[in-house]
Amino acid sequence: MPNPAAVIIGAGDATGGAIARAFAAEGLTACVNRRERNADALEALAQSIREDGHDARAFPGDARSEEAMIALFDRVEAEVGPIEVAVFNIGANVNFPIAETTLRVYTKVWEMACLGGFLMGREAAKRMAPRGRGTIIFTGATASLRGGSGYAAFSGAKAALRMLAQSMARELGPQGVHVAHVVIDGAIDTDFIKGRHPDFDNAKAQDLILNPQAIAANYVMLHRQPKSAWTHELDLRPWGEKW
Amino acid sequence: MPNPAAVIIGAGDATGGAIARAFAAEGLTACVNRRERNADALEALAQSIREDGHDARAFPGDARSEEAMIALFDRVEAEVGPIEVAVFNIGANVNFPIAETTLRVYTKVWEMACLGGFLMGREAAKRMAPRGRGTIIFTGATASLRGGSGYAAFSGAKAALRMLAQSMARELGPQGVHVAHVVIDGAIDTDFIKGRHPDFDNAKAQDLILNPQAIAANYVMLHRQPKSAWTHELDLRPWGEKW
Amino acid sequence: MPNPAAVIIGAGDATGGAIARAFAAEGLTACVNRRERNADALEALAQSIREDGHDARAFPGDARSEEAMIALFDRVEAEVGPIEVAVFNIGANVNFPIAETTLRVYTKVWEMACLGGFLMGREAAKRMAPRGRGTIIFTGATASLRGGSGYAAFSGAKAALRMLAQSMARELGPQGVHVAHVVIDGAIDTDFIKGRHPDFDNAKAQDLILNPQAIAANYVMLHRQPKSAWTHELDLRPWGEKW
Amino acid sequence: MPNPAAVIIGAGDATGGAIARAFAAEGLTACVNRRERNADALEALAQSIREDGHDARAFPGDARSEEAMIALFDRVEAEVGPIEVAVFNIGANVNFPIAETTLRVYTKVWEMACLGGFLMGREAAKRMAPRGRGTIIFTGATASLRGGSGYAAFSGAKAALRMLAQSMARELGPQGVHVAHVVIDGAIDTDFIKGRHPDFDNAKAQDLILNPQAIAANYVMLHRQPKSAWTHELDLRPWGEKW
Repeated sequence: MPNPAAVIIGAGDATGGAIARAFAAEGLTACVNRRERNADALEALAQSIREDGHDARAFPGDARSEEAMIALFDRVEAEVGPIEVAVFNIGANVNFPIAETTLRVYTKVWEMACLGGFLMGREAAKRMAPRGRGTIIFTGATASLRGGSGYAAFSGAKAALRMLAQSMARELGPQGVHVAHVVIDGAIDTDFIKGRHPDFDNAKAQDLILNPQAIAANYVMLHRQPKSAWTHELDLRPWGEKW
Repeated sequence: MPNPAAVIIGAGDATGGAIARAFAAEGLTACVNRRERNADALEALAQSIREDGHDARAFPGDARSEEAMIALFDRVEAEVGPIEVAVFNIGANVNFPIAETTLRVYTKVWEMACLGGFLMGREAAKRMAPRGRGTIIFTGATASLRGGSGYAAFSGAKAALRMLAQSMARELGPQGVHVAHVVIDGAIDTDFIKGRHPDFDNAKAQDLILNPQAIAANYVMLHRQPKSAWTHELDLRPWGEKW
Repeated sequence: MPNPAAVIIGAGDATGGAIARAFAAEGLTACVNRRERNADALEALAQSIREDGHDARAFPGDARSEEAMIALFDRVEAEVGPIEVAVFNIGANVNFPIAETTLRVYTKVWEMACLGGFLMGREAAKRMAPRGRGTIIFTGATASLRGGSGYAAFSGAKAALRMLAQSMARELGPQGVHVAHVVIDGAIDTDFIKGRHPDFDNAKAQDLILNPQAIAANYVMLHRQPKSAWTHELDLRPWGEKW
Repeated sequence: MPNPAAVIIGAGDATGGAIARAFAAEGLTACVNRRERNADALEALAQSIREDGHDARAFPGDARSEEAMIALFDRVEAEVGPIEVAVFNIGANVNFPIAETTLRVYTKVWEMACLGGFLMGREAAKRMAPRGRGTIIFTGATASLRGGSGYAAFSGAKAALRMLAQSMARELGPQGVHVAHVVIDGAIDTDFIKGRHPDFDNAKAQDLILNPQAIAANYVMLHRQPKSAWTHELDLRPWGEKW
C-alpha cells in the first residue's frame, strides 16, 4: 500500500518546514512545495527529512497558479499516494499606509496569502471529500481577526483565508474532511525575525519566540483528533505575548 | 463655492440609488457610478434626482479598474467639488460548493466586492486625509462576519472588505476621516429578491424586507455624526429576521 | 392620551442624563432612575428637563432590587403612560489583579452592571411584547467584547449584559420590540474623567472626549429606526481614539 | 516529592470525570470536586481511577462557596501536592423566554456557571502565579459566544466565564500560568443527552456525539503545550455538527 501523503504548500525554512518534518515523522510522505526560485532549499528540506529516516519529496511550483496546483495534486496522488493532509502556510505580511498601498501590492498579497489557499483547499477537497477523510489546515495570523492600521492588504487576505477555512469546514465536515485554521499570534523563530528583534537570543532562550516545532506539533494534533471532537480554530502565542 | 460631492460606487436601482438620493437631498451632489453597460440606468437615476430638485451626475465606469477609479475621483473633484462622502456598495453574492467554485468566480467576486472597494477607499483617502474631513462607508453583509457553507468566495471578499474598512478607520480616524462599515443582514427590496421571495408582497407590507430608503438614512446619519462619537460598524436587519 | 414614557435606569449626570433629555425633547416623558442616595440629583435632573419645557419624573430606587424594578415599571405605566423606551445605563468600571478581586467586588460589579439590566430588560419586555412595540437599549463598553488584564469582573458583567441584549433581540425582534446594544469606546465627558485625564480641556475642545449629547442622539436614532431596518449593535468612539 | 495535583471542579460522570481520568493517567493526582449531594458518585469516580492504578481523591463541596473553594485549594496543597492544573467544568444550560426567566434562575445559573469559575480561577491563580507555572482551563459552550433566543441566563454566565478566562490569560500568561478556554459545540455523550436525543445510539456509533475522553485529551494537550506556543482558545465539535 502506498504511503499517505501530506502536502505542505509554503514549506519554508521555519514553520512550513517544521510542519513537513512533523508529518513525515508520523509516517506520511511529506510533499513539500515552495516557489521554483527556492527549489534548491526545498530539495534540501526533503533530503534532510529523508536523512532522518522519513519520506519526503519536493514539488516546487507557484501556489498562485491553478495549473501548477492541479498538476501538483495529480502528481502526488499518482506518484506518492492518497493525500491525507494538506497545509497552506504562505504569508505575505506587509504594512503600508492606505495611500501608499499600490494595486500591485494589494493584489499580490491577496494572491499569495489567499488565492493560493483557495486553490490548494479546493484541490484537496476534490480528492478528500469523495473518500470521506482527510485534514486541511490553513495558517492564520493576528491579522486574520483584526484590521490594524496599515494592514489593509494583509488583514484582508488573511481574513478571506479564514472565511475560506470556515466555509469549507461547514461544507466538508459533514463529508468527513477536517478543516482547521490556526491563528499564530507572535514572532516566530525565523531568520527574518532574528534580524529585526531587538533582543532575539534572550527572548528565544525564554521561550518568548514561537518555536516552529511547537507550532507543528499542533498541526499533527489536529490531524490526529478523533472524529467526535474536531477543532476548527485555535490560537498559538508565546506565554509572554501581549494581546 | 462648489457643492461638496458624494461619490456612490455601485449606484444600482435599490440600495445604491437610495443612498445617492439621500445624500443629494442633504445638499451634496450625488456622483453616481456603475458599469458602462448600465450607463442608461445610471443616467436615468441622476436625471430623476435632478428632477427632484437636487444635484446629481452620472460617472459610468468599472470600479475594478484603477485607471477608471482615479479618473473618476479626479473628474469629480475638478468638475463638481470636494468629495465629502464616498460609498462602496457593490456586492457579488454567489454560492457554490467548494469543488465547483472556479478560479474565475473566486477571482471575479473578490474583484467586484473587494478590490473595487480598495481602489475607491484609497482614492477617497488620498483626497480626504489632507483636508482632515470626509466620510467613507462600505456596505457589508452577514457574510462579512461568517463563512457559511458554499460562501468561500463571497464571504472571503466581504471579510476582506471589512478588514479594509477597519484598517482604514484605525489609520484615518485620527486624521479626521470617518470610515464606517454597515452590515446588512436580510433581504433588500430589489427586483432580484422580488423574483425569488416566496411571499414578497406580504413580507414587504409587514416591513420584513429591508427598505433601501431606510438603509440610506443610516448612511446619512453616519456622515452627520459629530466627531466626538463616531460609529465604525452597525448592523441593519428587518425586525422579524432570524439571526 | 397619556404621553409615552422613556425609562432611563442609571440617569446620572453625564450619559444617562443626556439620554433622558434627548427622549424628553422627542416628546416622551423621561422617567429617570438612580439610587436613593442620589435622589436629590435625580430630582434636579427631572426639574431641569421640565424647565426646558419637556416632561420628566424622578423614580429613585435600586436597580438591583427585583421588587424596586417591578414597582418602578408598574408606577410608570400607571402614573405616566405606556413605556415605549427603556434604557439601561449603569456601569461599574473597576480594575483589579485577579488575586485581589474580592468576592464582594466581583458580585457587586455583576449586580450593578448586569443583574439590574436583566431586571429592567425583563420588566420592559413583559410590558412591550404584548403591545408589539417598544425599544430597549443597553449601554455597553469596550469591555463588552474584550477581557483585558484586570477586568475579570467588569468585562464579565458587560459581556453578560451584551448576551442578554443579543438573546432578547433574537426573541423579541419578531415580536415587534427593538433591542439594541451600544458599545461606547473611549472617555466620556464626565466629572470623573475630567479629574483623571491629563489634558482634559484641550482634548474636549478637539472632540476627543465623547460628548454625552452626541451619545444620546444615537439612542434616539435607534428608537426612531423604521421596522424594516433595525440596528442591534453599534459602536461609538471619538475620532482620535486608538482601538 | 509529592505528586502534582489536578483539581477538577465539576467532575461529573461525563466530561469532568473523563478529564480527571486523563490527568490521573498523566501522573497527576486527580482531586475531584462536585456537590455534597453527589459525594457518593464522586468517591466512586476517585475509587475507579485508583483501581486503574492512578491517584485520585474526592473533595466534595459547593463551588459557589468562597469558603469551600479556599478550603479545597488549601487542603489539596497541604495533603496532596502543588496544584499544577485546575479545570472548571460546571455548566447550567437552561432555556426560558425572557419574561419567564426568574431572578432565581438568572442568579443561580450565573453562580453555578460563572461565579464558581471565578472562585476557582482566583484560588488557582494565587497559588500558581508565585510559582510561575500551572494550567487553568475553563469549559465553554456555543453560548459563550452567542446569545440565542431564550439563553439570556446561560449565555450571560458563559460569556462572563469566557471574559474571566481571557482577562486571566492576559494577566497570568506573562507570569508563566497558562489559562485556556475550550468551546464545546455539540451534544456530549451523557445520560442526559442519551435520554433526549432522537437517535442516540446510531449517532454515537457514527461519532456524531462528543466523546468525553476525546474532549479530555485536549485538556491534557493544552497542559502539555510548551511555553513558546500556548493556545488560549479552541473549539470542539463532532464532524457532522451544523454550526
